[in-house]
Amino acid sequence: MAIRAGIVGGTGYTGVELLRLLAAHPGVDLAVITSRGKAGVAVSEVFPNLRGHVDQPFVEPDEAGLGECDVVFFATPNGTAMEMAPALLEQGVRVIDLGADFRIRDLELWSRWYGMTHHCPAVAAEAVYGLPERHREAIRAARLVANPGCYPTAVQLGLIPLLEAGLVDTRHVVADAKSGASGAGRQPRQHTLLCEAGENFHAYGAGGHRHLPEIRQGLEEAAGGEVGLVFVPHLLPMIRGIHATLYAPLRDPAVDLQAVFETRYADEPFVDVLPPGSHPETRSVRGSNMVRIAVHRPEDSDMALVLAVEDNLVKGAAGQAVQNMNLMFARPETEGLLAPAVLP
Amino acid sequence: MAIRAGIVGGTGYTGVELLRLLAAHPGVDLAVITSRGKAGVAVSEVFPNLRGHVDQPFVEPDEAGLGECDVVFFATPNGTAMEMAPALLEQGVRVIDLGADFRIRDLELWSRWYGMTHHCPAVAAEAVYGLPERHREAIRAARLVANPGCYPTAVQLGLIPLLEAGLVDTRHVVADAKSGASGAGRQPRQHTLLCEAGENFHAYGAGGHRHLPEIRQGLEEAAGGEVGLVFVPHLLPMIRGIHATLYAPLRDPAVDLQAVFETRYADEPFVDVLPPGSHPETRSVRGSNMVRIAVHRPEDSDMALVLAVEDNLVKGAAGQAVQNMNLMFARPETEGLLAPAVLP
Amino acid sequence: MAIRAGIVGGTGYTGVELLRLLAAHPGVDLAVITSRGKAGVAVSEVFPNLRGHVDQPFVEPDEAGLGECDVVFFATPNGTAMEMAPALLEQGVRVIDLGADFRIRDLELWSRWYGMTHHCPAVAAEAVYGLPERHREAIRAARLVANPGCYPTAVQLGLIPLLEAGLVDTRHVVADAKSGASGAGRQPRQHTLLCEAGENFHAYGAGGHRHLPEIRQGLEEAAGGEVGLVFVPHLLPMIRGIHATLYAPLRDPAVDLQAVFETRYADEPFVDVLPPGSHPETRSVRGSNMVRIAVHRPEDSDMALVLAVEDNLVKGAAGQAVQNMNLMFARPETEGLLAPAVLP
Amino acid sequence: MAIRAGIVGGTGYTGVELLRLLAAHPGVDLAVITSRGKAGVAVSEVFPNLRGHVDQPFVEPDEAGLGECDVVFFATPNGTAMEMAPALLEQGVRVIDLGADFRIRDLELWSRWYGMTHHCPAVAAEAVYGLPERHREAIRAARLVANPGCYPTAVQLGLIPLLEAGLVDTRHVVADAKSGASGAGRQPRQHTLLCEAGENFHAYGAGGHRHLPEIRQGLEEAAGGEVGLVFVPHLLPMIRGIHATLYAPLRDPAVDLQAVFETRYADEPFVDVLPPGSHPETRSVRGSNMVRIAVHRPEDSDMALVLAVEDNLVKGAAGQAVQNMNLMFARPETEGLLAPAVLP
Repeated sequence: MAIRAGIVGGTGYTGVELLRLLAAHPGVDLAVITSRGKAGVAVSEVFPNLRGHVDQPFVEPDEAGLGECDVVFFATPNGTAMEMAPALLEQGVRVIDLGADFRIRDLELWSRWYGMTHHCPAVAAEAVYGLPERHREAIRAARLVANPGCYPTAVQLGLIPLLEAGLVDTRHVVADAKSGASGAGRQPRQHTLLCEAGENFHAYGAGGHRHLPEIRQGLEEAAGGEVGLVFVPHLLPMIRGIHATLYAPLRDPAVDLQAVFETRYADEPFVDVLPPGSHPETRSVRGSNMVRIAVHRPEDSDMALVLAVEDNLVKGAAGQAVQNMNLMFARPETEGLLAPAVLP
Repeated sequence: MAIRAGIVGGTGYTGVELLRLLAAHPGVDLAVITSRGKAGVAVSEVFPNLRGHVDQPFVEPDEAGLGECDVVFFATPNGTAMEMAPALLEQGVRVIDLGADFRIRDLELWSRWYGMTHHCPAVAAEAVYGLPERHREAIRAARLVANPGCYPTAVQLGLIPLLEAGLVDTRHVVADAKSGASGAGRQPRQHTLLCEAGENFHAYGAGGHRHLPEIRQGLEEAAGGEVGLVFVPHLLPMIRGIHATLYAPLRDPAVDLQAVFETRYADEPFVDVLPPGSHPETRSVRGSNMVRIAVHRPEDSDMALVLAVEDNLVKGAAGQAVQNMNLMFARPETEGLLAPAVLP
Repeated sequence: MAIRAGIVGGTGYTGVELLRLLAAHPGVDLAVITSRGKAGVAVSEVFPNLRGHVDQPFVEPDEAGLGECDVVFFATPNGTAMEMAPALLEQGVRVIDLGADFRIRDLELWSRWYGMTHHCPAVAAEAVYGLPERHREAIRAARLVANPGCYPTAVQLGLIPLLEAGLVDTRHVVADAKSGASGAGRQPRQHTLLCEAGENFHAYGAGGHRHLPEIRQGLEEAAGGEVGLVFVPHLLPMIRGIHATLYAPLRDPAVDLQAVFETRYADEPFVDVLPPGSHPETRSVRGSNMVRIAVHRPEDSDMALVLAVEDNLVKGAAGQAVQNMNLMFARPETEGLLAPAVLP
Repeated sequence: MAIRAGIVGGTGYTGVELLRLLAAHPGVDLAVITSRGKAGVAVSEVFPNLRGHVDQPFVEPDEAGLGECDVVFFATPNGTAMEMAPALLEQGVRVIDLGADFRIRDLELWSRWYGMTHHCPAVAAEAVYGLPERHREAIRAARLVANPGCYPTAVQLGLIPLLEAGLVDTRHVVADAKSGASGAGRQPRQHTLLCEAGENFHAYGAGGHRHLPEIRQGLEEAAGGEVGLVFVPHLLPMIRGIHATLYAPLRDPAVDLQAVFETRYADEPFVDVLPPGSHPETRSVRGSNMVRIAVHRPEDSDMALVLAVEDNLVKGAAGQAVQNMNLMFARPETEGLLAPAVLP
């Protein structure tokens, strides 16, 4: 029987990508798609790529019948899911939050970075961090999944094989990350205009970015101890894709890095370890749920260099959410997620 | 039973798109993929988006066992298909040429534009022009299909409703067409370098472009008479997408243009007539086989203005080829072609 | 002695381009740069390319000492210049409006397209349309110059040689125009986000665009009679540049079009007629005040095809304003405007 | 009296940028521009932005009268300058090589990275490394200047204030660098096609890049000892601009980094230290000779983070060459190099 799915906040980039994936998913019935601003408007009027695929209007979140869904995805600004999730959970609806409300276990730390008080600490405590490569079994059983951030997914998948194996001198880990502009959302803002972000490149958030505590939490869990991390995000003059370039000093430079990665990810359907010497391209995962990773040890250096790419809207958001839904509802984990990336 | 498909010339953009579509097609077995230059190399090494989807090497065309295929696609430079097709047809293999060898019925005209003598006039005579919206029944029965060019597909689909209905003063039709750079192919050429074609826009071929006789042939068939056409192609600073802006003086400006288009395409699975007042975007069909069309009558003018978009690599090449294959092998016409466009 | 220049509304793209040109102009003193939103902020904080070149803050328009300037440029939304210009003119300040307030002679027509009542019809009557190639002598003497729109500059310069010479059957002229996104301004709007306008192409305003009456006014003046024009603008996935593709049926197809253009523009410093067979590229004028034009007669057609490129922010806005200032203050017309375009 | 300048190899991106800058330089006479492939063709036919600015043809290098120039710039593939420079120097011509022939002092090391034997070790020994911020006085007196590479300029200028002052623990310095595609040249190559490099991002040369030994040489000179450097270049989907993101563990995290940079570059005309908290944008130096630098100390970290941007074709190539020429011929160092960057 089809999973009845609801989407709260379907007008952003995460929302449209979720709609694209769920519309093509054989086991899902798109029951409810909400938007305060666009209620009454056909989804396919806002997103013409969905003409013929999603033939229903956005509805108000309140009249939405979200409580009759099997699962509700929140593709909303931070702070929305924590308001609505408790009532849904009580009604037996499972929840996947693509925002940040349930990602950080330390709620005081969360408040500091997100500038809000948390509305439902009790519910937050039961949330499972939705990185299947780390928490698959817990996700299967979860009522509430905190879907990881886009940068955190790429950085964690690039570093956990080294950290889990205790291979890294964890004092000076560097994550130099670059993201396409879709990560900044669909709200009109000056710095993401084509004339500002096109033919241009710069870092941002060098003084501290919200994804830093989430990444650190994941890395420290994997390492079983503190990780000294510098994380610098940059804005790429393109739409989709994240590239994480990761530098980790090795305790023992003689380790076979390629084998470490291949072994760690041997059974992972959405992590592809490239042959030695490779340089993964973001376009090789455009529109796809794959993460592709290459590991190098630069000449004359005792550092590991990891290159990891993902589509920030897929494995970095909507695709990983669908993967989590598949796990939660005992569907095949890869269902609806196997279309090859679109290249060129 | 699966259709055994062969692809000759799989290393270009048309080739990789054909591979992407056929790999995901439930009724096709990718039997043979040839390349002279890359024989022995894994397909997925050249196109990393296909890792896990196409797990075989390119082979030499001669050792290729093409004769054992049910259908062979030619994604080759012009002139190749006409050399190899006759032998394949004799062996009972059906052929779809994505090049131009069989598109122009008047072979003298063909020779003038393509600068070669035709190798197999007899075979050429039986080729069916693979525009399903005009020749669906003939395609079903065809042994040899000439897959239309990218510009010709968009321009013909935008104009034939008017021409078939005799609505146009055919002396001064203008087709101002714009294409993404993937239409120029994957061969390294200076003018399609990112530093030449990026942040830049220009017309080309104003003195005459090879797609002109193909377009005129199709339009004149639809009109049942001569069509005076000016066709000007332009290079867009982007990868995928064709936008045809079409201007046609009307015999009777009072005609209901919207109704003409909606009626003509009511049953077409891959032509989407947008509501009145629309401006179709190329990205609304990126990676998809749809053509989206809007028709306007500009204020104070007796002209019809038609806006048509397609993905030049899909409906303008590989997708239409798969659509033709589906027709030729009595599969559902839309099979393998229904994934929504990737937006943004 | 230096011209004391004021700029009202310096925070948009037209503003920053004007600042770039005037900062490098040897005969200009940048006396006042106003902005309501950014008053008190250093200009170079908003536009870091001007660090070391423009070392002053934006000021409020009212405290601005605009009345002590020799010339004031309005780089403001439509409707601002008509409010402020009369007082400045009375104080003996000359005014160049880069907006649309004084471009249309028929104020009723203006009101219909711009949705406002005109504040100063008397002043509007004396405004000179600042296209030097048509109105050079009047500009020299003008107190108030209406700087042409970006599309109107390219389309007029591309067609006036033919229209002035009476060569065109004026019933079916087509102007298919394409503009970079900087023409849409620096205000955050959804459709000009990189993720919306990048890798995408579409027409807009097919039902009527504000530049249409301005273009028609100019063309009809040149033709000495009515001109039936269809004008369709399109948004290019790039920052700077306009390409106008112009189609004009010829009364006598035997005319030497190349000679017509070369003769007409022989003495124009900013119009470059390319050799026969050329396709001008927008990047060949990026950052420069040049318009480059090629004229073709497509095979088997009685139409003239004109291809014209400009930088919409320079000859289409700020550069033409500086050219007009040079004329008004008897400076060499090309002063400060001769830097070559930046390519690639 | 004007400097008579010759350019060998004027058809690449470095060449056209040099022509753009020298054409606008008040103290230079462009005497000779050579190209083997384009001899006899007008320079402005290849580069239409130079129409009206450079009105002469390319000539063969042998008939070139290079010996009568005051200075000859080599904008050629590696290996050319070392063949031609000795004879020119003997004739009293001064030479600026924009290639790599004279950048590495250790010729054995040079041979290993560039795969050639050096033709003129004696001449190489007298070459001055043309980074004015380090070697200004030597450049003034030099007969032969080795113009630095694009990455090496950005990385060195970003790190030398820290290294000269002995502030860095030099064992684990990371240079994560990103370049626009113009750094890869104008030769048609597949990976720099718009359809390959556009909407895409990846690292390259992770196993070792030719700029590594050049960078290390410069950093070690500044540090007065060994520097353990990992240098990873990446290809940006845009034309111009380099962004170097530099990570350097500090010996004493309490140092005032901002003051270190401001003091070091106080008198440098082409290095702009941004206010604390800044994120320099590549577009802020597009077409300009400026390098803009910001320095941060990320929270909870003992690392310095330096962000440095340059235009790879200007300060990273042609502009720095002109700066060196100005020094060599006792012209004002900034002459011809003060035009503001073009933004947007």
